[in-house]
Formats: sequence, structure tokens, C-alpha cells
Amino acid sequence: MTTVEPPAARRRGRPGYDRDEVLAAAVTLFNEQGYDATSVSDLAARLGLTKSAMYHHFASKEQLLERALGEALDGLEGVLAQPGAQQGSASERLHFVLRAAVEVLLDRLPYVTLLLRVRGNSDIERAALARRRSFDHQMASLVREAQASGSVRPDVDSAIVTRLIFGMLNSTIEWYRPSGPKDRDALTHDILTVAFDGIRPR
Amino acid sequence: MTTVEPPAARRRGRPGYDRDEVLAAAVTLFNEQGYDATSVSDLAARLGLTKSAMYHHFASKEQLLERALGEALDGLEGVLAQPGAQQGSASERLHFVLRAAVEVLLDRLPYVTLLLRVRGNSDIERAALARRRSFDHQMASLVREAQASGSVRPDVDSAIVTRLIFGMLNSTIEWYRPSGPKDRDALTHDILTVAFDGIRPR
Repeated sequence: MTTVEPPAARRRGRPGYDRDEVLAAAVTLFNEQGYDATSVSDLAARLGLTKSAMYHHFASKEQLLERALGEALDGLEGVLAQPGAQQGSASERLHFVLRAAVEVLLDRLPYVTLLLRVRGNSDIERAALARRRSFDHQMASLVREAQASGSVRPDVDSAIVTRLIFGMLNSTIEWYRPSGPKDRDALTHDILTVAFDGIRPR
Repeated sequence: MTTVEPPAARRRGRPGYDRDEVLAAAVTLFNEQGYDATSVSDLAARLGLTKSAMYHHFASKEQLLERALGEALDGLEGVLAQPGAQQGSASERLHFVLRAAVEVLLDRLPYVTLLLRVRGNSDIERAALARRRSFDHQMASLVREAQASGSVRPDVDSAIVTRLIFGMLNSTIEWYRPSGPKDRDALTHDILTVAFDGIRPR
């Protein structure tokens, strides 16, 4: 993803913004008015940069989208790569992964929001959807394994409850704001409480 | 909502479609391509009707939207008006209302889908959002009452878990299809299992 920029060109960008800040501003604007409806000119205007200064940071709007979706997907896939996701009983792994997925969601809220709105309108979006489906399949496998080992109740469909739990988790993008009245720790606690107690055997 | 149509004009509409069928087709198209991006001409083309035949059924695209959102909201508000929502303990009422809300969602899936995508871009959308917020507040009150009576665990925030449970329920619009591989009864069972066991005291 990194493009080689000549130092002279880089200096022409405003000093206040680095690539990550430009990306963050782009994602905010994509979420506000939709990716398709947002032009590089809109982004430049939001940041007070010229269009050519924007292009010193990113080659195209598509590259911004790809990098933004990567932030969300790298985070989720990173959860599955951690030792806690690979060692221990199925129940321990499921608890680890759900808790870590909630952390990724809340740490990278704008990026995950963008990912959840992707509909597959381009190669970049379709590639992101394929990575998301792969993550979902691995989660469903883990729930199935936990069910086979007796730590998820037997009378639910593992594929359905996986979708329901992630549907619950992902729905927080619709209302949760870090600066809002609801505390992040309370939200994390309540998500994990409903998820774990909702599926464990009684 | 009913407009008085002269019999001569009504006869010009195709015999195959009544108002409900035109509404259902409109909602399908709104969900597929977005309300703003859908014109009355698009709707007429989908149904094989002339634009003027469309206008014998509905005065405007806005009237179709209003009626469609009303289908969803009337269903949800109707749940709260039933005896089961008004009689019995808070726990009994909460169980009744959640089960009935799931039924409304699945019975009126395209209409609820449209409602959940409304962003408040017009007076009709803002009125729908106000009705939705009122429903949400009544649900949160019921959860709070159930918590006060000891039938919802004390260590969760009643407003958060209300949002989480409806977030889980509403997320099914993203993937559930009546003709798909997952059975409606299994879905209903699993939603209510996760919701009720997720919040009841242990």
C-alpha cells in the first residue's frame, strides 16, 4: 500500500496532516455522505487541502477505501491470529475472540462502520466482503466447536446464533458514540453478558 | 391515506394489481436500489404499468413511502396495544412483546427493512423516526421495569441491553430470507433464547 513519494512532493502537503489523519478524515466523510457520493474534491475541501495535496497522500479514492477497509479487516483477522484464539478449550477461545472482536469494533468504530456498509460495488468492495465472509465462517466454526464440546447450549443453530451475536455487536455502530452518555466498559460488559449467557447451557 | 378515484380512472389500471401489490413492489424496489434513487417511472416499469396507471394507486412516491413505513410502525405499535403487552408481570409483558416484535419483523420483513434504513431526509422520514423512537422508549421502560422487579439481571444497563436486543433482532434483515435455508421457527427460537437467557438473572 505504501507509495514512494519524492521528498519535495511530500513537503507540499500541509504539515498538520499525515497519511493516517487523511485516512481518518476520509472515513468520516464516507460514513457521513456515502462513499459513492464523496469525491476527492470533497475530501480536500474538508481538510482544507488542494486536490493535488490530497494525491500526495493517496493515489486515488479507491486506495483510501481499500486502506480504510483494511484497518477494519486487519483488526478482526488479527484477533484470530492471537494465541488466545488458538490455544485452550473451544469455550476459552470463543470467549477470547468475542471480547477481542468487541475491542476491535470499539477501537476502530469508523472503519468497521464503513466495512459494514459495503455492498460489493467494486473489486475492492468484493475483496473486503470475501475477507469478512471468511472471518464469519471461522467464527461460526468456533461456535460449532464450542457447541460440540458442551459449552454452547445444544438447542440453538450455531450458524444462526453466530449471526445474531455479531448482528448485536455490529448494531452498536448505529448508536454508540465514544463521546456519548454510554460508557465503553458498560457496553462491552453488556454485549458479552448477553452473548455468553444467551448461548451457554442452563 | 385513501384517495377518491373516479371509477373510470380506476378501470384504466391493470386488473392484476391492487394497492397492496403496488405497495409491495415499491418497497422491494426501494430496498434494492434506495428510496431516493427510485422514481415513479422505475416503479411503473417494474410493474409493467404506465406512470399514469401508477398514479391511480398512489398520489406520489412520498405517499408510497409513508404507507410502507406505516406498515412497519403500525405492526410494532400494535404489539404494545395488545392485552399481553398491558397485563401481567413486567417479565410476562416483556416476553410477550419481544416474541410479538419478532413476529412483526418476520411477517413484514421488507417494510421493517425500509424503516430501519430511514435517515430522516424528509418530514415523512422524520415522523417515522419519531414513532420508532417512541416504540424504543417504551421497550426500554419495560426492560427497566422488569429489571426493577428482579426478572432482568441487575448488572446490565437497561437502555444498553434494550438497544442490543433490538440490534440483534433487526440485524436479521441483513441475511434472513423466507425462502432461504434457515427456518423461521428456528430463527425465532434462537433470537428469543439469546435475548431472554442473555438478560435473566442467574
